[in-house]
Amino acid sequence: MPSRDARFAATYRLSGTRKEAYARAREICLEQTVELPASVIPPGFVRDYIVGRIESFEGRPGRYEAVISYAVGSDAGELTQLLNVLFGNTSLKPGVRLERLILPPAILRQFRGPAFGRAGLRRLLGAHRRPMLCAALKPMGLSAEALAELASRFALGGIDIVKDDHGLSDQPFAPFEARVRLCAQAIKRANRRTGLHCVYAPNVTAPFDELLNRARFARAAGAGALLLCPGLIGLDAMRVVAADARVRLPILSHPALQGSYVLHPEGGISPYALFGQLARLAGADASIYPNYGGRFAFSQAECASIVQGCRVPMGNIRPILPCPGGGMSLSRIPELLRFYGRDVIFLIGGGLLEYGPDIVENCRIFRRLVEAG
Amino acid sequence: MPSRDARFAATYRLSGTRKEAYARAREICLEQTVELPASVIPPGFVRDYIVGRIESFEGRPGRYEAVISYAVGSDAGELTQLLNVLFGNTSLKPGVRLERLILPPAILRQFRGPAFGRAGLRRLLGAHRRPMLCAALKPMGLSAEALAELASRFALGGIDIVKDDHGLSDQPFAPFEARVRLCAQAIKRANRRTGLHCVYAPNVTAPFDELLNRARFARAAGAGALLLCPGLIGLDAMRVVAADARVRLPILSHPALQGSYVLHPEGGISPYALFGQLARLAGADASIYPNYGGRFAFSQAECASIVQGCRVPMGNIRPILPCPGGGMSLSRIPELLRFYGRDVIFLIGGGLLEYGPDIVENCRIFRRLVEAG
Repeated sequence: MPSRDARFAATYRLSGTRKEAYARAREICLEQTVELPASVIPPGFVRDYIVGRIESFEGRPGRYEAVISYAVGSDAGELTQLLNVLFGNTSLKPGVRLERLILPPAILRQFRGPAFGRAGLRRLLGAHRRPMLCAALKPMGLSAEALAELASRFALGGIDIVKDDHGLSDQPFAPFEARVRLCAQAIKRANRRTGLHCVYAPNVTAPFDELLNRARFARAAGAGALLLCPGLIGLDAMRVVAADARVRLPILSHPALQGSYVLHPEGGISPYALFGQLARLAGADASIYPNYGGRFAFSQAECASIVQGCRVPMGNIRPILPCPGGGMSLSRIPELLRFYGRDVIFLIGGGLLEYGPDIVENCRIFRRLVEAG
Repeated sequence: MPSRDARFAATYRLSGTRKEAYARAREICLEQTVELPASVIPPGFVRDYIVGRIESFEGRPGRYEAVISYAVGSDAGELTQLLNVLFGNTSLKPGVRLERLILPPAILRQFRGPAFGRAGLRRLLGAHRRPMLCAALKPMGLSAEALAELASRFALGGIDIVKDDHGLSDQPFAPFEARVRLCAQAIKRANRRTGLHCVYAPNVTAPFDELLNRARFARAAGAGALLLCPGLIGLDAMRVVAADARVRLPILSHPALQGSYVLHPEGGISPYALFGQLARLAGADASIYPNYGGRFAFSQAECASIVQGCRVPMGNIRPILPCPGGGMSLSRIPELLRFYGRDVIFLIGGGLLEYGPDIVENCRIFRRLVEAG
């Protein structure tokens, strides 16, 4: 059992006047721990250690921030319960946003985080300094053969990671096993021609009782990475795939169904915490999110905060790569290089299909643009 | 493979002017399926069947509703992928709320839903017509022995379901197995004294690789129901527990970490769909949610919509029981009986501890108030 004095914490952004915001902070201390009115909290250990503590409170009307700490041990060493203590019931109350996690080594050491991380993924892709390129196999509805043909073109054009669209699952028109086998083979053949190290990242997001089977099948069939949607399967499911000895592949985390956490201006979870800190804690090696200026509504500032969340020091938890996508076009690459620098994976989906009739050539242009940065 | 013409659908609420709202509806058709600009969608099967279809569009400025349908098959027979098609990427876009699921038998038959449902839970509890009573073991930080003592008092006082607080996991101060064993025994002993049928519902929300072990242990140790937080473990994990042959216990679904979906006024998922339809699809037998007028922000109308979502006909998927809780007090029971009628489980947490010094007596008052309704 850890020392009674060890605490983990989070920063919450609070709406309202100073008085309202402070009242919200005090409510969080109870709601996230004892869920009792102050009058019936047992004295001693529960009142002195278990109840959340306001460690700091500052800000201005409409935007206060409180750091609230909790006893190490209340998280039970579980990612599920850590999330529960940090934001479980408070997610149901308005005017509170989970902004940042503040986790001491006693918590961080309970998790392995990304098995590869930024450095490991660079080694795997043979991309030691440059930004990396990712393309998406789509649309849903194509056959496994047609998707494999597309994968081949992406790989021949110099894409580093060819991922399944997150909508490809195990549909009758492109069953999982056939698709994964064919796409992995197609990319392997293309690599022999190019001498490059393109990897295939199939979507293994799956029902609870199928998830590990799919991830292990993908590994055996020659996949070089995996795509997972923690919003669909739970963050902790991603952690288990990342740690599985029979998988051992880098993971790209996709934000499907996580949008409701980050879109509320005064509630939910910040993109920094969700797509940065929590994705890392749950074992993602790269974090896909909607880039600013695309067809989603993320701001430049939000994207910059995700980049920070991907690389802020977190003890034993490795830094990972931000992977902006969502309606990106080749013409924006020079601007995006200035914004993101080298430590980034650029994900272009439909843009690679519509830029010109020759998809291999479109990819080469993409690669030249990135390498020129 | 189902008929190419079979479709499932959802109703989305759309913000903005008529023109903006219609544009959002058209975007959903692409975003949730092909994720491609219209110009590069392959003709034939993909364009004719896979792309979402606007089946209806109506409303007034600021509140349009569109029914959009998708090809049966794109869901792959998976709850994870069904959620993905219904709201995956669109969750990341502002101004769209998933309001209602419209699922044909071809989809519903892929799921078992609640193993007990409203009728099964009533039989188990021996409560054939009356509202049922639920109390929560808390606070986090008490020992397993102290929690078992509290469980005994609740059972002696006539509570039907004694559930763990959702913050009780596997903490060092009350380890899961010891707690479950002691609480189950305490309730069994109390039942022998009262002749009643109180059941213990331990919280088996757990890491991915522990979940089924905990649920099965709980069953073997004498639990009569289970508490699960699908927001922490994923909706599909609940489905698997509900279907597990070695568990076979009714499930109470708890809304921890799901609040961000329902709090956004113009986004997210409606309480009707999330705490009603989706909870049922994922196997919950009762759905816990924050009652109006308590310490959470739900309105009376939202609570009424959850009740509807719990009992609206869904083919082979049984109706379930709404379980309002969250800052409820005994004094509100007469009003809540008028609002909810008989088909409800009233969850009172802290209120049973603070009403008076004798917890057994507080429970008896609770029961008399409910039976007088």
